Amino acid sequence: MNTHYPSVLLENAVNEFAKLPGIGKKTALRLVLHLLRHDNESVSHFAHTLARLKEEIQYCNCCYNISDTEICGICADLSRDATTVCVVENVKEVMAIEKTIQFKGLYHVLGGIISPIDGIGPSDLEITSLVERVKNGEVKEVIMALSATMEGDTTNFYIFRKLQPYDVKVSIIARGVSIGDEIEYADEITLGRSILNRTPFDESYKLVK
Amino acid sequence: MNTHYPSVLLENAVNEFAKLPGIGKKTALRLVLHLLRHDNESVSHFAHTLARLKEEIQYCNCCYNISDTEICGICADLSRDATTVCVVENVKEVMAIEKTIQFKGLYHVLGGIISPIDGIGPSDLEITSLVERVKNGEVKEVIMALSATMEGDTTNFYIFRKLQPYDVKVSIIARGVSIGDEIEYADEITLGRSILNRTPFDESYKLVK
Repeated sequence: MNTHYPSVLLENAVNEFAKLPGIGKKTALRLVLHLLRHDNESVSHFAHTLARLKEEIQYCNCCYNISDTEICGICADLSRDATTVCVVENVKEVMAIEKTIQFKGLYHVLGGIISPIDGIGPSDLEITSLVERVKNGEVKEVIMALSATMEGDTTNFYIFRKLQPYDVKVSIIARGVSIGDEIEYADEITLGRSILNRTPFDESYKLVK
Repeated sequence: MNTHYPSVLLENAVNEFAKLPGIGKKTALRLVLHLLRHDNESVSHFAHTLARLKEEIQYCNCCYNISDTEICGICADLSRDATTVCVVENVKEVMAIEKTIQFKGLYHVLGGIISPIDGIGPSDLEITSLVERVKNGEVKEVIMALSATMEGDTTNFYIFRKLQPYDVKVSIIARGVSIGDEIEYADEITLGRSILNRTPFDESYKLVK
């Protein structure tokens, strides 16, 4: 007896959940048993939501963020600064930056990051569309807001080279000591970068503007 | 701006996942974005599996374990000892005990444990059906294999009283020092219980029979 599941239906559901990242067989079983304790309606609602998600989801024709409409709410918002475009990996980063209420420009969602180890090359990402956007549009500044990792840096350099022929300023978000962090425990690369990129200080300085 | 999701479809899917135990909004978003990276077919397969799970799942008419048939594979197996019934909380415990290959009897799955704090009383569990099974059947021994918690003990006592009028032996799985555990770190209740319930030792003694 290799498998100990008393039901194929149960086993199938466990296997589907276990395909998700960070969810093993034990957690999957716990989730499935949880669903079984609910009424038919809420489980079929869950299933229906999932089915609709993939079938009906759209991506903004301008910034390639997930959207319910052809042009997303941010791109359609005329009060935002269309001359500044922030390049991010994914919708998660758009949400994180929107939460800061510090950015009033538009976004460009790459849909990933250059990562040879995962088989993701530049052609898998929305880089050509970014270059087109810069070529055709009113973009004056592109802010790179990718992760501070090897893959992020590779992608930064690749995009920087692709944008070099055009009259656009390319900047990168500041790297430095996180707010709340103690200097003693900051790693030396972060600390070195935060010294190189020091900013003017006066009495009106606040941690968050 | 309270919600930062760029899409209602996305938000709905995140909310559905976040209803599952141990999954917060952040993990839910990660899971949904993972599904979006897959092809339509595998996501609709996931949705379909979930819908089928709840609609078609059955419970064994004899032991109330999850089953694809009216009588589950264990209850239908004539080579198993129908005079011994092991009472467990859930399908997870059936699977765990089956894995040990130490038990050849049948099961009775309560579907939970008496827990006033969660609003679960005896009538919510398969206790009446257990008593019926003992009353009508060939059961000679009922082994209680519930968690060694307050709720487990309450359920043990409740079931013991319900079974007292009948000619059936009620036993409980051994509590003691776990294999691999050091005596030094065992809690005093476990250690005390393991001394009270000591077993005869001779040269043929093995940790697992």
